[in-house]
Amino acid sequence: MLSRYRFLSSYVSPKARAIVFEKYGNPKDVLRAYTHELPPLTPTTLHIRFLASPINPADINQIEGVYPAKPTFTKELGILPDGEHKELAVGGNEGVAEIIAVGEQIKDLNVGDWVIMGRSGFGTWRTHAATTPNDVIRFNNKEIGLIQAATLSVNPCTAYRMLKDFVTLKKGDFMIQCGANSSVGQSVIQIAKAWGINTINIVRNRPDIENLKTHLKSLGATHIITDQELRNYKTKSLIKEWTGGNIIKLGLNCVGGEVATEMAKFLGQNGTHVTYGAMSRQPFFVPASHLIFKDIKFLGFWMSKWNKTHSREEKGEMLNEVIKLMKFKKESPADIAFEEVLWGNQNESDESLKNKFLSALDKSGAGFHGKKQILKMQT
Amino acid sequence: MLSRYRFLSSYVSPKARAIVFEKYGNPKDVLRAYTHELPPLTPTTLHIRFLASPINPADINQIEGVYPAKPTFTKELGILPDGEHKELAVGGNEGVAEIIAVGEQIKDLNVGDWVIMGRSGFGTWRTHAATTPNDVIRFNNKEIGLIQAATLSVNPCTAYRMLKDFVTLKKGDFMIQCGANSSVGQSVIQIAKAWGINTINIVRNRPDIENLKTHLKSLGATHIITDQELRNYKTKSLIKEWTGGNIIKLGLNCVGGEVATEMAKFLGQNGTHVTYGAMSRQPFFVPASHLIFKDIKFLGFWMSKWNKTHSREEKGEMLNEVIKLMKFKKESPADIAFEEVLWGNQNESDESLKNKFLSALDKSGAGFHGKKQILKMQT
Repeated sequence: MLSRYRFLSSYVSPKARAIVFEKYGNPKDVLRAYTHELPPLTPTTLHIRFLASPINPADINQIEGVYPAKPTFTKELGILPDGEHKELAVGGNEGVAEIIAVGEQIKDLNVGDWVIMGRSGFGTWRTHAATTPNDVIRFNNKEIGLIQAATLSVNPCTAYRMLKDFVTLKKGDFMIQCGANSSVGQSVIQIAKAWGINTINIVRNRPDIENLKTHLKSLGATHIITDQELRNYKTKSLIKEWTGGNIIKLGLNCVGGEVATEMAKFLGQNGTHVTYGAMSRQPFFVPASHLIFKDIKFLGFWMSKWNKTHSREEKGEMLNEVIKLMKFKKESPADIAFEEVLWGNQNESDESLKNKFLSALDKSGAGFHGKKQILKMQT
Repeated sequence: MLSRYRFLSSYVSPKARAIVFEKYGNPKDVLRAYTHELPPLTPTTLHIRFLASPINPADINQIEGVYPAKPTFTKELGILPDGEHKELAVGGNEGVAEIIAVGEQIKDLNVGDWVIMGRSGFGTWRTHAATTPNDVIRFNNKEIGLIQAATLSVNPCTAYRMLKDFVTLKKGDFMIQCGANSSVGQSVIQIAKAWGINTINIVRNRPDIENLKTHLKSLGATHIITDQELRNYKTKSLIKEWTGGNIIKLGLNCVGGEVATEMAKFLGQNGTHVTYGAMSRQPFFVPASHLIFKDIKFLGFWMSKWNKTHSREEKGEMLNEVIKLMKFKKESPADIAFEEVLWGNQNESDESLKNKFLSALDKSGAGFHGKKQILKMQT
């Protein structure tokens, strides 16, 4: 391995390309591509090179100014070719980067390490960034592919925390989730399977439902039921048969609306109902009897908040644990439907980079449908 | 004071009158009055004489078989004049009794002590009962009137626990409640006042709203707002003005439906929304953003469950604390609207006792409206 000192002797700050905005609004109106030089490395800073960064729904909401986690507006982006010096934010919250230079006072990170961002609002739609150790989390990248790494920090980590932090699930216990074919839902199935937890998975009925069932079974789903079947009066006894009368302790909800209310009925005494999304864009009903007599707790989970309140060490531990549990295969690029967007070529014009980005944004359909668009950096 | 031994030497088990049922159903169909002798006192049992017992809504639901806390069906009611020996339950869950005889091995209870029941399902619509120390909680009756004591165990204790157990409220903090003029709501106001907690009280608009406001103010309410006012767009800034920007940490809900959803909007980050009733008989909506981004917890409270999971010592402590906080005045009979029903005369026929009871039951209107009916025992 190159020593950081040897590396530094000939090191020149790279030119960075980024998708930035200076005020909230419709992404098409406010986003632009931007080229700048990274500030020179200091003894306590890092330079990182992004490898891949997805476009997630929350990123869009953040640019619109309607997301509670705010981006970081800063004048520190670097030396601007045109002398302009406005407060800019870089879009994107998730991605994987490689460390390319390490300030001499930093002892625990090395050139070549793969990192993800330790907080939301960092800005990941860019080729390079200057940062500090506090803002990055290193993880073991031996077992994990590039696209898996780029999409590791939000969905698989959300699944892991929700299975771990709300109730104590032992081998053989049961949990239930709706939106089971969401990215988080699929991670829930894999992590639960690794822990010996039985999953009851609710999905929307669809023409190719058998294909979906086969896919979820292959990930480790114990039982699969459609939202239509859920409303059938026989479902109560069916689920009782599945669980052998065991209580379902945990329900995970990313859909809201009717299915979130229905799901609560199947939770046992003292059960916990955790909401982490609202794909249906509908609130859900809570009947008082669930709260009063069954003592069911209706709680929420937000990965950004967890990240805000936990240390870099805890985050690193989590990442390495999640990588082990998910049984990522380096040769199979991802467990999600995605499309690579080759982006960030040093020689391309800002205009071309912007158009390429906006076209990917279009295809992501605000991220709720279709394949996830992932910028793969060509630097 | 009479020693328990001296007292026992001439003690004869009293004749007991009770409202009983042997199967679930419409109270009018299944309830009957019943006369029996108490089983003789043993070294480890007590005899108690009931002083007053209210008719509560939950009592009716229990007889109908639709309440999760079940009554105690037993063949142990005593020696039956007609030799009949079916499993019977006594109706009623709340009431105050006086100890009239104490088994010689019992050291911590005395003849003359006032007690309430330590569990639900004991049966309080009766003149006398044989029981054990575990089933009764002694309290200090010096500061408290008969009707106050008879209605102490459910509503004031529910208010006390909800203010104490969910979030840590310090002097000057804010809480909000709907159904603020309910029995529990009024206890909440009094206890919060004693602790220096500011209360924002939501009540339904009505023709005599000013009288109600005056009454709640006299109990210690900090602010009062109608459900109509709550929906006004100016309310947000009004409440912000009241709280001086302080976060509202706790919301208590006994109504459900729209007001329960509205109330949640005023809770601050990490707030707790506790449901203990559903007077509107409507479930309420939970928007995902409250759960995910504001981390509001939607929980329930049920006094019966608390009683089941806590010791006699803890219950006794709570009662004495509640009596102090509520500033009961022995000379003013109660803080609730009630009507005394003189009941249990030793010489009255079972038929007359039953009819008197059913007439009170009618007036209680299943307890949701009108004055609370309280059996005052004429023994």
